Amino acid sequence: MNNFVFQNPTKLVFGKGEIAQLAQLIPTDKKIMITYGGGSIFKNGIYDQVKEALKGHTVAEFGGIEPNPEFETLMRCVAQCREQGIDFLLAVGGGSVIDGTKFIATALKWEGDPWQFLAKPMRVTEAVPLAAVLTISATGSEMNNGSVISRREIKEKRFFFNDACYPQFSILDPTVLYSLPKKQIANGVIDTFVHVVEQYVTFDNKAYIQDYWAEGILKTLVEIGPKLIADQHDYDNCANFMYAATMALNGFIVMGVAQDWATHMIGQEITALHGLDHGVTLAIVYPGVISVMREDKREKLLQYGERVFGITQGSEDERIDQTIAATADFFRSLGVAIRLSDYNIGDDTIEEIANRFDARRFMLGEKGNITPDKVREILHTVK
Amino acid sequence: MNNFVFQNPTKLVFGKGEIAQLAQLIPTDKKIMITYGGGSIFKNGIYDQVKEALKGHTVAEFGGIEPNPEFETLMRCVAQCREQGIDFLLAVGGGSVIDGTKFIATALKWEGDPWQFLAKPMRVTEAVPLAAVLTISATGSEMNNGSVISRREIKEKRFFFNDACYPQFSILDPTVLYSLPKKQIANGVIDTFVHVVEQYVTFDNKAYIQDYWAEGILKTLVEIGPKLIADQHDYDNCANFMYAATMALNGFIVMGVAQDWATHMIGQEITALHGLDHGVTLAIVYPGVISVMREDKREKLLQYGERVFGITQGSEDERIDQTIAATADFFRSLGVAIRLSDYNIGDDTIEEIANRFDARRFMLGEKGNITPDKVREILHTVK
Repeated sequence: MNNFVFQNPTKLVFGKGEIAQLAQLIPTDKKIMITYGGGSIFKNGIYDQVKEALKGHTVAEFGGIEPNPEFETLMRCVAQCREQGIDFLLAVGGGSVIDGTKFIATALKWEGDPWQFLAKPMRVTEAVPLAAVLTISATGSEMNNGSVISRREIKEKRFFFNDACYPQFSILDPTVLYSLPKKQIANGVIDTFVHVVEQYVTFDNKAYIQDYWAEGILKTLVEIGPKLIADQHDYDNCANFMYAATMALNGFIVMGVAQDWATHMIGQEITALHGLDHGVTLAIVYPGVISVMREDKREKLLQYGERVFGITQGSEDERIDQTIAATADFFRSLGVAIRLSDYNIGDDTIEEIANRFDARRFMLGEKGNITPDKVREILHTVK
Repeated sequence: MNNFVFQNPTKLVFGKGEIAQLAQLIPTDKKIMITYGGGSIFKNGIYDQVKEALKGHTVAEFGGIEPNPEFETLMRCVAQCREQGIDFLLAVGGGSVIDGTKFIATALKWEGDPWQFLAKPMRVTEAVPLAAVLTISATGSEMNNGSVISRREIKEKRFFFNDACYPQFSILDPTVLYSLPKKQIANGVIDTFVHVVEQYVTFDNKAYIQDYWAEGILKTLVEIGPKLIADQHDYDNCANFMYAATMALNGFIVMGVAQDWATHMIGQEITALHGLDHGVTLAIVYPGVISVMREDKREKLLQYGERVFGITQGSEDERIDQTIAATADFFRSLGVAIRLSDYNIGDDTIEEIANRFDARRFMLGEKGNITPDKVREILHTVK
């Protein structure tokens, strides 16, 4: 097991009806900016619940934060927060709204152009306090310090981390999933699944509990994912999925182990260039990553196949083949097409992505050995 | 899954050589009281490492905190801290030292007799900041808000919780286990194991991930426990055990599920009356609890038997019998005698314990249905 430091201060408030707790969770002297996305919170009743809970608080609102939240949009909110003296941000939405709100919170404390801390990795430590009411489970942003921001003007998607961006609290009411489009549930299950494998299908870290915990989340997703697509009104399945998504990326399963993240890095480029949903890009790229990197990941792929999918028959290579196929089948069972050609993406995009990694001189994977050529090979595998 | 609130602010600093981080973790303007136990830290070099790391800090010391830390001893430390204007407590020890330090930290902010907040459950919210350098893995106190204190004068052992008592940080260096007496390793493995089953072997909570996570810790302990007793110098086994002990009682596996704690409550009385090691009392009592409560715990006992010990053959009742036997065998495999008679404890003690629960009108177990008569039956089962 590797040495590590872990700390996660976010308070989780989990369960049916818990949005009403908002009143107790934010001091009344705060000037709150509620941030949200495309307006689904007006249809599903969450907006009304939030406003009801915040009666007596000073509240402003900023809507229209897009999926893959856009730098220009967020900068408009930064300006409004400055004008209105906002000192608390409440994100009511999914990962995009929460990520966007983390950016706003950080930008409000940043002197100079906030693109600076996105343009290249940089230590940022300050932010206006923020919290979240989660409406879409997927990214885990509700209980971590990371954020991914897009700038469509230059077709870039960048991330940053800021310890001051752990939400002070996040309210997770599983019933919010009842009204979510099935496509978003499928994307969320895939995103959660791939978060886990990025922290698990690497090599043997002699971290037995971390392995079991990662496998526990994966087995749960394999079990309930297709059931949720068929019926999204089963409270326990919604609760377990919502719990899974938060636990997948809050630092719990990653203590002392290696991390991959190649799938996310490559998928991010597909979104930047073609606007595909984040979850869809992961379902496309991941089978390619474990195909091309099968030798580096051999031991862990065998363990993953056996413990998550029950694959025990055949030679090692046959079992790895079965494991890659089972992974792809699982993504397809959620109703998602997982080939680049399904989205009319061809060789030109593959070249552009490989060239982008070449220009950045940035090697991917848990061993830092995924070269731009390997990225090209991965994408050709899933064409 | 039940609704829940979770928050755990403790920073974990984990791994070989990490005690040297102390200098960065405590502000230099703090007046620090180092608390410790019987003096093993002088023999194993930990005292020297701590003092070396804290050069330049203002440091006082208080030693002699006993296993099952004693109220009178701790009150002497409270008086010394007051005299010296201490504003930071650093526990260097195992669960007893850390629990004792939590009491000291709370008592320093308490007006009136600190026995008050032990005598009956009471909300306490203030404490002097504290942190820990862990030297014995067992209780999980290094990453939770609980503390158990003994008062031998009246043969009582009581607990309290205080959110201000989460250690600000805890340093876990697995090599500290290399010099630990084997008996303490055995006790620590048992304590960790029973912490997990208290939060897991209840009934079906429809909390799939929490179940897998609990089972992951238990399987790891079953795998490495006897190996650690045979050879306590394997770094990875030490690291996994140390990690297990912390994860078993830091709130991670208990989100949204029922809890038992009957074994701890009954075991605590045996320690109060006869001074047995905490871990030993748990190994004695737990097989009795699952024997007597087998109908209430039927579904979960079958799952526990299958997933942790691989028990799949025979009728349900036979499998439960095998599971109880496997649990007892596991405790014995650590070199611990698990019958009351092995410690010359007989019917008079059983009666006294049953009478104590009768007097408190306090029902035990996840369903609150373990009556004083059931407590008597449990103890007769393990006589």
